[in-house]
Parts: sequence; C-alpha cells; structure tokens
Amino acid sequence: MRIQVVNPNTTRGMTAAVTRAAEAAAGGRFELRCSQPADGPLSIETAADTIAASPHVVAEVVAGVAEGCAGHVIACFDDPAVAACREVASGPVVGIAEGSMLAASVLGIRYGVVTTARAGIPMIEDMAVRYGLDRKLQSVRSCEMAVLELDGSPASNARVLTAAQQVLDDGAEVVVLGCAGMAQSAVWLESELRAPVVEGVAATVGLVYGMAAAGLRTSKLGAYAHPEGVAVR
Amino acid sequence: MRIQVVNPNTTRGMTAAVTRAAEAAAGGRFELRCSQPADGPLSIETAADTIAASPHVVAEVVAGVAEGCAGHVIACFDDPAVAACREVASGPVVGIAEGSMLAASVLGIRYGVVTTARAGIPMIEDMAVRYGLDRKLQSVRSCEMAVLELDGSPASNARVLTAAQQVLDDGAEVVVLGCAGMAQSAVWLESELRAPVVEGVAATVGLVYGMAAAGLRTSKLGAYAHPEGVAVR
Amino acid sequence: MRIQVVNPNTTRGMTAAVTRAAEAAAGGRFELRCSQPADGPLSIETAADTIAASPHVVAEVVAGVAEGCAGHVIACFDDPAVAACREVASGPVVGIAEGSMLAASVLGIRYGVVTTARAGIPMIEDMAVRYGLDRKLQSVRSCEMAVLELDGSPASNARVLTAAQQVLDDGAEVVVLGCAGMAQSAVWLESELRAPVVEGVAATVGLVYGMAAAGLRTSKLGAYAHPEGVAVR
Amino acid sequence: MRIQVVNPNTTRGMTAAVTRAAEAAAGGRFELRCSQPADGPLSIETAADTIAASPHVVAEVVAGVAEGCAGHVIACFDDPAVAACREVASGPVVGIAEGSMLAASVLGIRYGVVTTARAGIPMIEDMAVRYGLDRKLQSVRSCEMAVLELDGSPASNARVLTAAQQVLDDGAEVVVLGCAGMAQSAVWLESELRAPVVEGVAATVGLVYGMAAAGLRTSKLGAYAHPEGVAVR
Amino acid sequence: MRIQVVNPNTTRGMTAAVTRAAEAAAGGRFELRCSQPADGPLSIETAADTIAASPHVVAEVVAGVAEGCAGHVIACFDDPAVAACREVASGPVVGIAEGSMLAASVLGIRYGVVTTARAGIPMIEDMAVRYGLDRKLQSVRSCEMAVLELDGSPASNARVLTAAQQVLDDGAEVVVLGCAGMAQSAVWLESELRAPVVEGVAATVGLVYGMAAAGLRTSKLGAYAHPEGVAVR
Amino acid sequence: MRIQVVNPNTTRGMTAAVTRAAEAAAGGRFELRCSQPADGPLSIETAADTIAASPHVVAEVVAGVAEGCAGHVIACFDDPAVAACREVASGPVVGIAEGSMLAASVLGIRYGVVTTARAGIPMIEDMAVRYGLDRKLQSVRSCEMAVLELDGSPASNARVLTAAQQVLDDGAEVVVLGCAGMAQSAVWLESELRAPVVEGVAATVGLVYGMAAAGLRTSKLGAYAHPEGVAVR
Repeated sequence: MRIQVVNPNTTRGMTAAVTRAAEAAAGGRFELRCSQPADGPLSIETAADTIAASPHVVAEVVAGVAEGCAGHVIACFDDPAVAACREVASGPVVGIAEGSMLAASVLGIRYGVVTTARAGIPMIEDMAVRYGLDRKLQSVRSCEMAVLELDGSPASNARVLTAAQQVLDDGAEVVVLGCAGMAQSAVWLESELRAPVVEGVAATVGLVYGMAAAGLRTSKLGAYAHPEGVAVR
Repeated sequence: MRIQVVNPNTTRGMTAAVTRAAEAAAGGRFELRCSQPADGPLSIETAADTIAASPHVVAEVVAGVAEGCAGHVIACFDDPAVAACREVASGPVVGIAEGSMLAASVLGIRYGVVTTARAGIPMIEDMAVRYGLDRKLQSVRSCEMAVLELDGSPASNARVLTAAQQVLDDGAEVVVLGCAGMAQSAVWLESELRAPVVEGVAATVGLVYGMAAAGLRTSKLGAYAHPEGVAVR
Repeated sequence: MRIQVVNPNTTRGMTAAVTRAAEAAAGGRFELRCSQPADGPLSIETAADTIAASPHVVAEVVAGVAEGCAGHVIACFDDPAVAACREVASGPVVGIAEGSMLAASVLGIRYGVVTTARAGIPMIEDMAVRYGLDRKLQSVRSCEMAVLELDGSPASNARVLTAAQQVLDDGAEVVVLGCAGMAQSAVWLESELRAPVVEGVAATVGLVYGMAAAGLRTSKLGAYAHPEGVAVR
Repeated sequence: MRIQVVNPNTTRGMTAAVTRAAEAAAGGRFELRCSQPADGPLSIETAADTIAASPHVVAEVVAGVAEGCAGHVIACFDDPAVAACREVASGPVVGIAEGSMLAASVLGIRYGVVTTARAGIPMIEDMAVRYGLDRKLQSVRSCEMAVLELDGSPASNARVLTAAQQVLDDGAEVVVLGCAGMAQSAVWLESELRAPVVEGVAATVGLVYGMAAAGLRTSKLGAYAHPEGVAVR
Repeated sequence: MRIQVVNPNTTRGMTAAVTRAAEAAAGGRFELRCSQPADGPLSIETAADTIAASPHVVAEVVAGVAEGCAGHVIACFDDPAVAACREVASGPVVGIAEGSMLAASVLGIRYGVVTTARAGIPMIEDMAVRYGLDRKLQSVRSCEMAVLELDGSPASNARVLTAAQQVLDDGAEVVVLGCAGMAQSAVWLESELRAPVVEGVAATVGLVYGMAAAGLRTSKLGAYAHPEGVAVR
Repeated sequence: MRIQVVNPNTTRGMTAAVTRAAEAAAGGRFELRCSQPADGPLSIETAADTIAASPHVVAEVVAGVAEGCAGHVIACFDDPAVAACREVASGPVVGIAEGSMLAASVLGIRYGVVTTARAGIPMIEDMAVRYGLDRKLQSVRSCEMAVLELDGSPASNARVLTAAQQVLDDGAEVVVLGCAGMAQSAVWLESELRAPVVEGVAATVGLVYGMAAAGLRTSKLGAYAHPEGVAVR
C-alpha cells in the first residue's frame, strides 16, 4: 500500500522535513510517495498563496492516483485544495490541519494549536469550526515566526516551545503543531513538555493509512464526484 | 464612484446577464466596471472549477483596484477567491452568496435558497454556516439544472419557480436565487411569488455600493493584509 | 429616494449628531428624514427604557412610511422595536447594531465592539448571536461612560479610543462603535487607529440605502406581516 | 409565600383560564396573585402587540413586588417584557415559554411545541435558541387557530390534539403547549396522549415557586439592575 | 409529597451537609428522603468514580420510587447516572449541575461556576453545552481543593470565596457552586458577595419539588422508557 | 503492535462478528486482542445497560494495557466507558461511534447513520454533537430491529439496506452503520449501495492503529489522568 504526501509549497528543505516526518510515522510498514509540486509558491501564508498553490497540489494528487496511491495527505496547515483533491481521488484525502485536529480530539478533552503568526489565529479557529472541532479547541498561540524561519535550530525550537507551553497553561491537554515546518521539532518538543504533541504530518499519515487499510474510500456521490474532464489549470 | 462586478466564469451570455442585473441595481446612480476574466472555466460547478477560476478572478480585481473601483462584487454563488480579493483591495469585496444571505437576513425571519443541483445543497448550507446565517436559512431546494442551462426561457423559469415555491412552502419568507444565472429571471419570479426575491448580483451591488459610499473599507490589519508582492498565478 | 433615520431617544444633541453622521454617509446622493420621537426616554440604557421608547419609535416609522421613505434606520445600538418597525414598513428596516455587525463581518475576519458600560457587554454578545455574527465577534470592551456623557470632547474621545485599542489588541481587525453617541468621534478615531471604524449610523444608512436602491423589500409573508389595524400604544 | 401570575393580555376569559391553571399547580400550598393589566391589547400575536402590552406587564409586576410577591410568572408564550420585569423584581421572573422549555428539557430527550399559527413557528425556534434549548427542540407544529379561538371546546381541543400528535410523530417525547390559551385543555390532552404535556402556566408556576422557596433571587449586578427611577410609560 | 435526594458518594459528612441543604430548601413544606448508597466510592472525581457509583445511585432511586417519591435529585455536580435514573423513575430526575445551571440561567444574563480542580473545568463547560446553557456560562474558576477538603472551615470558605469573586470579576452575575461539598458554605458566601449564589442541592430540590407539585413527569416514550427487567449491577 | 478490541456486551455471536470485522481491517498487518468482558449485560440498549457494562469494559482495557496493547477500540455504538478507559490507558482509546463519525467526516460532505431503534435516534444525534460532527450528520434512520436480531440473514440485511438507502435519499454521501451487530453485513451493503459504508469496528481499528503507529498517546494531563488507585467496581 502506498500513501501519498504532498508538500504544497516548493521549498525543498520543507519537503525533506515533511518526508522525514512521514517516514517516521510509516516506520517501514508501508510505502510513501512524498513530493512537492513542479511549480507554485515557496510558502503558503496568504490567500493568494493558497490560490497559487492549489492547481499544482491537485496535479500532484492526480499523479499519485495514477500511480495507485491508496490515500493522500496534504502537508500544509492551510489544508489547501483538499476538496478538489477529493474530487480526483478514490482513497481518503486529509489535510494536516483536519488530521491533527481529529487526532487531538480523541487524545484529550481540550487541545491547543501553535501557529506561526498572530494574524493567522482566526483562520485556524475558523478551520476548527469547519471541522466541527472548535469546542475542543482551548486556544491558539503564535510563535511569531515566518514559515520558512522554522528550521529546527535551538532558537527556533525555543520559540515554538514557549508558545506550546502557553497553550498548555491556557488549559489544553494536547498540543497541535500548526505548521508542517514544525515537524522537525516534534520529537524534541514532546520530550520537553508533559503533553502529547500532535505533529500533523505524522498524525495524518497515520490516520490516512489506517483508513485506507480499512478499505475506506471517498464518496463519489456528491460533493467529491469526479469533475469529469474539467482540466485543472 | 465605480463599483466592480466580476463574473468569475468565461461565458459571455452570463456576463451579459450579470451586467444587466448590476445596471438595474445601479439605476444610473453610479458607474459599474463589469467583466469576466481573460481566461478560466466556462462555468463553476466543482472545486476544480473554483481553483481554475480563482487566480483570474483576483487578477480582475487587481485591475479594478488600479482603475479606482471603490468596491467589488464577485458574481458567482460559490463566492470564489473572495479572501484573496480582499487581500488586494481597499474597498469592500463581497461575493453574491454572502451578499444575498446578509440582505435576506434583514428582510424576513427565515430565508431559503434555490440552487441548481441537489448535490450542491450541502455546500450552500456550509456557506451559510461560515457567514453566520445558517439559523435563518430555512431550506435549500434545487431546480436540477446545470448552470449554463439557465437561460431565462419559460421552461427554465418554470423550474426555478417550482423550487422557489418549495422554499416558501418549507417556511421561508424570502427567496434567495442561488446562481448568478438566475438573475435574468428575478423580476419575473418576484411577480409570480408573494415574497421578496433576493437576486445576488443586484443585492450585493447595492450592499457594496452602500458600504463604499459610507466610506467603509477592508481592514488591512490581519487576514486581508496585502500579500506584498506574492504574484498570483 | 428618501431614507429614514430615527433616533429612538429624545435628546436633541444626539439627534443632531445622528443626523450629521447620516448626512455624511448620504453625501447628498439621496434624501434623509432624520427625527427623534415626540415622546419617550432621554436615553436608552435599560430594558425599561427600551419598552418606553418602542411605541414612539414605531410611530416615527409609520410616519416615515406615510411619507414614502424607502428604507429605515433605527439609530440606537439596542436595535429597539426593529421587528415591530418591519411589520409596518415595506422597505428594509435595520437597527445600527445589526447594520454595523453585518458591515464589519465583510471587512475583516474578526470585529470588536466598543460599548459604554461593562454591564452591557453580555447584551451585545447576545445580539451578535441573534444576528449570527458571534463567531466573528472577537471581543467587546467598554469605555465606562453613560450614553449622554459621550460628547465628542477630547476627554470623551480618549476613553473611547482606549477601548477601541483594547479591542484591536484582543485581535479584532475592525472596530464597531457600539453607541450612536460615538458617531461624532468616528472620523477622529479612524485617524488614530490603523483599522476601519464602523460607525453604526453611517454604515447602516449605507446598507439600507443600497438595499432599497436595489429594490429589496421586507417580506410581508410571516413574521413581519402588517399587524392589520392593531394600534401601537 | 405569594407567587404572581400576570396574563399580559386584557381578555378576561384568558385571565380566568390562566388563573385556574395556576391554582391547580399551586394546589393550595401557596398564595397566588393572578391578574391582567389595566390596559393593553386583547391578545398578543404581533410585535406591535408585544410593544403595546409591555409597559402594562411591567406595571403589574411593580405592583406585585410592592405586595411582597416572591416570584413572578409572565403567562404569555411570547415571554413579553421579561427582562424589564427582572429589572424591577427581586425574586425570579420567568415567562411561560422559557419555563416550559426548561421543564420539558429534563423530562425527555426531545420536546416539541404546539403553537397557534404556522407563521409563528420561527419565533418559537428563535426563543428556544435564546434559552439554549434548541437542540432538544424536535419540532414545532401549529393548530392554525387564533389565540382567542382556543376555548377548550371539543373542536378546539381536537385541533390542538392533532398538532400535539404530529409533534410526537416527529420524534418528540414531551409536548409543550405553546399558548396560555391552551391551558384549559391540558388535562384532557394528557389523557389522550401517552406523553407528558407541559402546560406553561402550571410548569412555570411550579418552577418559580420552587426557586423562590429555595431562596433564589434575581441578580441585581448587571443586566437586571433596577432601572433606578426611570418610569416605564 | 416526598422528594428524594441522593448523595452519590459514601462519605457520611457530605451526606449530612447535603441533607441540611435540602432541608433548608424544603423549609418543612414537604418531606425529603435523603440518603447515600450502600456502597460505592467515597468521592467522585474521575470517570472511574462515576462508573463505580452509578449502579448504586440507580439502586437508591429504585428504592425511592418504590417508596413513592415524586421527584429525585442527584446531589453530585457530575450528574452521574441521571439518564438511567430517569429510566426507572416516573417523576422528574435532575442532577445538581443541570438544576443549578437551569436556575442560574433565569436569574442573571450570565452565570459562572466555582469548581474544585482546574483540570475539571472542561468537564463543566461540556456539561453546560449538553444542557444548552453554555452561552450563558461566563467562566469556570477553581478553588484548587479536593472534594473532601471542603469542610466549611474559614480556610476552606476563603478559597471558595476567592474563586467566586473571580467568576464575578470575569463578568458573571450569578455564582453557581460546583460541588455539593460547598453547600455548607452557601449562606456565608452569599453574605460576602453582592450576587446570588446558586447552591445546587437547594436549587435543584426547589426545581424538582416545584415540577413534581405541578404534576410534571418524566416521559416514558423513548430515551427514558423503563429498562424492563434489565437488572443494574 | 497489538490493538485491543472490546465487545462491551457478553453475546458470543457478536464478539465473533466484531472479531471478524477487526481481523479484516487488520489484514494481518498487526495483532489484535479481541474479547468480551467476563460479565455484564448481553446487549446494550438502555442507560441501565451502559452502567452495567461499564466497569467490565474498563477491566478489559486494564488487562489489555497490562498486555502492552498500543491502542483500544470499544466496539459498541454507545461508546460506553470511553472516558474511564482513557484514564487507564496510554495509547488512544476510541469508541466505534466516534471512530466512524470521524472517518465518515473526511469521506463525504455529509454522512448519515443507520441505527436499530427509532427511539435511539436522538442519542446518536447527541453523540454527534458531543464529537463536533453534528453539522455533517445529514440524518439518522432506523431499521427497527433489536441489537441481537441483527444476524446477517437476508431478512436482516434487507432491513438495514432499506434504512441505508433512506439515509442516502436524505442527502448523505456516506453511510455509517450504527451498531456493531451490523458489521457482518457491511461488505454486502457496500456492494448494494453506491456509497461508502463505514463499519465502525473496521474504521476505528484502522484509525486507532494508524494513530498508535504514529506514536500518538492519550494525554495524562487532565481529564484522562490515571485515577490513581481507585478501583473500578
């Protein structure tokens, strides 16, 4: 069984970090197809970025479907293009925000999210509402760094840790890392905190693999029916 | 004062219908800049379509901003790319779903939506939730026609009327037309029903004009800050 | 086209301020009928006040309807008697709380309200829930002044500004002024803050005018059917 | 201990029916002060009626407070003027809609409401939302009769019974009678149905008496502080 | 009429305190059957405790029903086993969390809860959601004491008072005591605070008595139908 | 890695069916520990049943933890004792209602549930609310059979199929089987319907395995802290 993991941005360092996180989660039990699109923005931090990245994300999933991937993970906390990816796929497609929130919701009575920028906090709250997981969301805190500044260095990790501790002090029992770029720090963070740290790539790879292995498939009855020949540009 | 109206698809007949609806709402009181993008899908009925149309919609708004438009209407009931359009604009940007739901919410205690396809009903319910107007949404009914089949002919109108009557029978007090393609039938529908018919282009042009005239502008503080140089492809 | 603006209280200074705000929003594009009732409380700060003012507010709207007004604004942030006004009107009737919250909801991802008294904060939160705009409401802050103390003086303005800044610091991207008495300070406030300031009279006059100009009318099918001869005392 | 029951309308037949229902609930255990206002509308079916009745309802409660009533029931399913009554009272004040919904919510997993007119259904749904009891509200059905047509005759009872049965068929486990005028039929209805019938006057008299006897009082800290000298006209 | 009050834990001191609170609420107007189960945990602070206590709580209610009790109060703020108790009872069954939240919801526009442990705050928030009373819940504060440490001593009272004051400072207008063990301090607390203090045993005894006296009974139609012979172990 | 699956009732035929469904989902990729408790009710259809079964379910999980199980599935659609099981476990614990609703929520825009008895529909709706997945729940339909009547026979299957088709006709895009007893019919049902059928045991085994394999563990910080020595009876 092969699970696809798409890094929606075109920064190779992030694709590498995402791949490592996915491989750790897979632990050799199944194959992975990890990639970034051929084109698109270097990072996704605005609605403009999401629009720019989306067609390329879908193209990657189309390729993954052609290669027989049984499930698909979109490795950006904005969950870009997930609906369109579900249109072209048969197996489950889950973005890492939805995946980590779903996972966190069964691990504790409340979870919190650490994100990059303060201005992005409402977008994460709105995503939680969309996924139905807003009541369990205790708080969202920011470490005030740009996506591409997250590099796993001690300075970078310290700032993420501070925000994670704030989330626990707010009353959350589980910390969700709100950016794929934090994946590289997940193990270290969990050793520093007394709470589970849900890293989106690992959690969602696990969920999608588990669901695909159980034979679960995306419904083609309505919202996610195949677009039937409409090319994505 | 000039208000921009963008038809996100590339079907000239629809752009013409949208323009007529906008002009009727403006009544000569202000200028309009009505257009369709240079490229993109002929109709927007899937998530793939939305992705394909989005960059072109934003490009139209960029052009409208450069020409000094004071407000912007996105004339497709999927409200595609509204967030990204708000990033590049100063004046208010409102999609016709959000605009007609907001308008309907003050005209009656409950409103209903007539849409094209049954499979699209959940998407409209979810949009109402996103806009906070789901409690006032009594029901959504479909006339089972493709977007480009809506042509203002008696046969087409009859099907829309049937669905509109169902919405009133369900208990709604206001009918919202859930597709820009229904604009051409709005006047006739209102003469047949005893309830207000909210046609999205007219309603949203009215709202946006009213807000722009009152000096209201999009906040650049957070979610809709200008993307600062990130080109939309 | 004439738009009616009713100041529900009987304080002439406030009626003057409300009129100025409405005239600035109209900018000469359309006529206004601004008035206060013949009788009623000097200010509206309790439920008792609302009850005392309501019949007089409705009487003003009845008069406005008789004079052919196409839309009606109720210029008090308690939105008193709006439902009863909708019963006697044909055109749209919107209170300035509902109007400013609707406007704010499309200008930023979160808005906040500055109100007069701390004890009134829950009432504003409940209104936001009623209008469906509670999720976008980031916070409500009070400037701890009575309605009639708001006089546009530097001392008064400074207190409103402080509360407005708190609302932005809480994470809101748009500031809504939660009392018609703050209208006189709106321009100054916007020059001091980096965020849009939604002053209810101006915003709602804009919305109502835009909707009336687009031909939108209150539904007489159910909740807002004319009370048919039952005199309002 | 004396509990006040106010019929907000000025129809003596209804005041008599309300009094009988209250007396049955009191069963001689405590005193009642049942009255209708000196002036006001004969029935309450529109927002205009509510406005007309409200000052007179509050005046009745002021009188009841002066006579030492320990709790107050507003016997109209519109719960008119409850907030203003709480301002002038010390003991609990509960309208029969809020009272019957609260009672119903602990007697079954879902309750339904029988109301008079179909057009009034959304208002009842909105009240349930306001009281937090909307999720437990299974449905609202109407018997299509004017308030003053409910007279306890076999014809009147049969129509109420039909609507009550619909509510149970919809899945409710408890029937709430949505008009004080149905009080006279409550005993007969319960004998016909297999489900508890919550008649608002009886249920709310019970609740208010129980709360007053337990020493519970309205908070004067904020929303329900005494209006301090503002006369209600 | 006899009302049953069950202390779900097996600590005699708490049963005594619960009994005193119930007797004060009853004021001699009706009989009480106060008891603790024959077996079960000494306190209820974990889900394991709730499971251990539940069968014994139901057994107490079965006994109370056999003795003709007309209503039943479950005197633990976890509201353990309420659904199962409703299955075996005819009269109303209410837990003190649901009872105090319902009572508080009509006494002020916002209420707050004082609980024992910080870690328990989310459970109380979730209960408020379940009962529909979460919007009126302003905050939950903890006094950081174990259930059995609450002994009415000055030190114990001081800690509860501090948390109660925090809840009022947060904006609540009514304080709900979130543990039956606080019952003994209720009178003293109310004398120290300017706000109503809702002590769950007294409030719920009042509510249940009032409802039973009004003839209200649990519906046996669905969720609370008698389990018909399935013994509870 | 070993995943535990507990059938909370003591009917051997159901345990066998549950085991088969789990084994199909595991597909030999990992070990399973499938069991039923030593004691407890034969089926779980009332709150009394849930109380009776709960301590035995927790005891099974305690045993599974001692044997090193990395995750735990509670195979009854009532999700009995899940919170208490989380207290005693380290790995994830998920009931099959929560598991199938979470899985269904990413496979289609709306899902529906087929349950056994009509009277149980509100309980399932309430569970969806608790899990945050109520907006995506389109409908719940019943096949009107007792839990132990589900035997995989053509007659039994036909009734489940009818209810499943109703759920799709209501607008759902995914069918969730609302009883572990339906597991044996899942493959046949999916062949008859055009929509994904989410069978709770298989889906939850997949989710839990995926999460455990990704290293996700239950938080011991608050609600699910170990009860520390309090024996479950």
